[in-house]
Amino acid sequence: MERQDRDLAFMLQYENIAWFDGREVRILDRRVYPVKVEFVTCKTHQEVTRAIADMVTQSAGPYTAAAMGMALAAHECRDRRAADQFKWLEDAADNISHARPTTVSRMKIITGGCLEAARRAIEAGGDAAQAIMDHTIEANNLRYSKVHRTAEYLVDMFPDDGTVMTQCFGETIVGMMLKVCRDRGKSIRIYCPETRPYFQGARLTATVCHDMGFDVTVITDNMPATVMRNEHVDVFTSAADAISLDGYVVNKVGTFQIAIVAKYMGVPYFVTGAPDPGHPTIDTVTIEMRDPEFVLQAMGQRTAAQGVKGYYPSFDITPPYLVSGVVTDSGIYAPYDLHRYFNNGDGEFAQRGLNL
Amino acid sequence: MERQDRDLAFMLQYENIAWFDGREVRILDRRVYPVKVEFVTCKTHQEVTRAIADMVTQSAGPYTAAAMGMALAAHECRDRRAADQFKWLEDAADNISHARPTTVSRMKIITGGCLEAARRAIEAGGDAAQAIMDHTIEANNLRYSKVHRTAEYLVDMFPDDGTVMTQCFGETIVGMMLKVCRDRGKSIRIYCPETRPYFQGARLTATVCHDMGFDVTVITDNMPATVMRNEHVDVFTSAADAISLDGYVVNKVGTFQIAIVAKYMGVPYFVTGAPDPGHPTIDTVTIEMRDPEFVLQAMGQRTAAQGVKGYYPSFDITPPYLVSGVVTDSGIYAPYDLHRYFNNGDGEFAQRGLNL
Repeated sequence: MERQDRDLAFMLQYENIAWFDGREVRILDRRVYPVKVEFVTCKTHQEVTRAIADMVTQSAGPYTAAAMGMALAAHECRDRRAADQFKWLEDAADNISHARPTTVSRMKIITGGCLEAARRAIEAGGDAAQAIMDHTIEANNLRYSKVHRTAEYLVDMFPDDGTVMTQCFGETIVGMMLKVCRDRGKSIRIYCPETRPYFQGARLTATVCHDMGFDVTVITDNMPATVMRNEHVDVFTSAADAISLDGYVVNKVGTFQIAIVAKYMGVPYFVTGAPDPGHPTIDTVTIEMRDPEFVLQAMGQRTAAQGVKGYYPSFDITPPYLVSGVVTDSGIYAPYDLHRYFNNGDGEFAQRGLNL
Repeated sequence: MERQDRDLAFMLQYENIAWFDGREVRILDRRVYPVKVEFVTCKTHQEVTRAIADMVTQSAGPYTAAAMGMALAAHECRDRRAADQFKWLEDAADNISHARPTTVSRMKIITGGCLEAARRAIEAGGDAAQAIMDHTIEANNLRYSKVHRTAEYLVDMFPDDGTVMTQCFGETIVGMMLKVCRDRGKSIRIYCPETRPYFQGARLTATVCHDMGFDVTVITDNMPATVMRNEHVDVFTSAADAISLDGYVVNKVGTFQIAIVAKYMGVPYFVTGAPDPGHPTIDTVTIEMRDPEFVLQAMGQRTAAQGVKGYYPSFDITPPYLVSGVVTDSGIYAPYDLHRYFNNGDGEFAQRGLNL
């Protein structure tokens, strides 16, 4: 394949991971990808909520899935009176937004945008589901351009020939970061911690890097310090599930630990994303605790004896003093200076709930 | 089962993990334990070397297996002339000692002790294999008493009601540590990082803790920092594959990273074991690099796409400034003061190659 085709394939493969086809929503099952390419089919918006809660899709996937769930909800109530449609869609937005406790704030922005698009269509006698799809495609196009600008700022921090460590699956930003590296002729090697218990790093991030033609090495989650010591790492970077306005980063469990190690090793940590006005302080973030049994298995195989307990916080919190910079679409901000992002004439990124 | 019986069962189950029965050596296959209880049978001492290299057994297991391999070698050459027996046994000792590059120094002490016992038996016209078995049992009895004293010093560092984090599988010291806690009425909860890629923490350490009746929780290797922050951890402890005389700790990959995190969190890190005179400085230690493909699977299930690379250092190195104390059978030493261990009238522990 030509490189441009590979980019297109990448976008199709990794971005259109949830789609409403006019009848139902199909979501790529990232729990088994890339070993298997399977889709979860949702016939109701509640099934979309369940799929998000069950982590069928991750990173930016849940937000696209949420919008598709809203389109499905609009389809479900299309024959009702306008007032009933509004009520149905508001209930659906509430249901979908609460799929996972840590992301309620950002989900409400996504579903709120869909609600607004639907309301305008219904009031004009149009097709609300189509309006939600149009709105989502437009929002994603805006997102791509914003992520591209974010990637440009991030890649500024890379040497011409260097090594980058990631954490979990930063989805669009990972692909865009690599595209910018290639456009600028930067030669980057990538180390991906595997990200237990779901192996997003091994299964997803590493696959994107390899598909984009980069040298990528998977390590287990107990190796970042050793790799930083022995192999030289120039930059540690991750996306975020939330960045509170007081500079704390909420991301996949393990980020905090690697950030500590990076600080100790003198490796800068850059988080990509936008400060979240829904979280003025870190105290407003609820960290989701998932089924502890899930850490007692790997790829479906039991690891521990019966009677042994598990522990499974989905995310951890990295404090601002471990963050070298918050890389946004309008530049790199100190984690103590995030309010300035919204005064930069460019704050609609976060306000519209667009994530990386 | 009564508690005393449970202790006995523990010793039988976890200690007699390799045994020469007069014809062949059977080694408990810890790669599949506890899900399956299977043994690898070695009909030649070279097969014992291969089993150690293949990580059929870990922690103290390889040292017992090495001694059993020497007994098997003595059995192999029993009908030859004395001089030929010496030559055969020296070659076997060399072969077995080099099974894994990081442990050659300690292995040579083990096989050297066996050689010496065999030499005395052959010169006296006795049974060299039996002499090696007798020597090994005596050495293990001495080891138990030394480990018991080490555990007493370690448990001094625990509160009456507290939480301990381990790393990988400290074998005898973990069981003995828990026994001392119970004898003293200390109520200890244990967090075991699962220790990828072999899951020794999930499969072995957690099983010992549970069998001994303790509250034990397995976490993935990206969670130690979060557990230390959210759940309060009083002490981080590990055994070591080698402690160099200049205070560096060589242990399962991940130890270095948790030690950094523990330092950051103000949690003390105590390593159990004895300084190794075979390693006057850390520069004499070779870190074994294992098959990188092994980190691209979990419990036999492939995790990464084809073409993605792996990276697999077996051990890492924790510098002395991250070590709060080296806990030995004669007390707790600063990592900068390890020469004093040998002036304490008790240095034969390390000199005889007895590990935890």
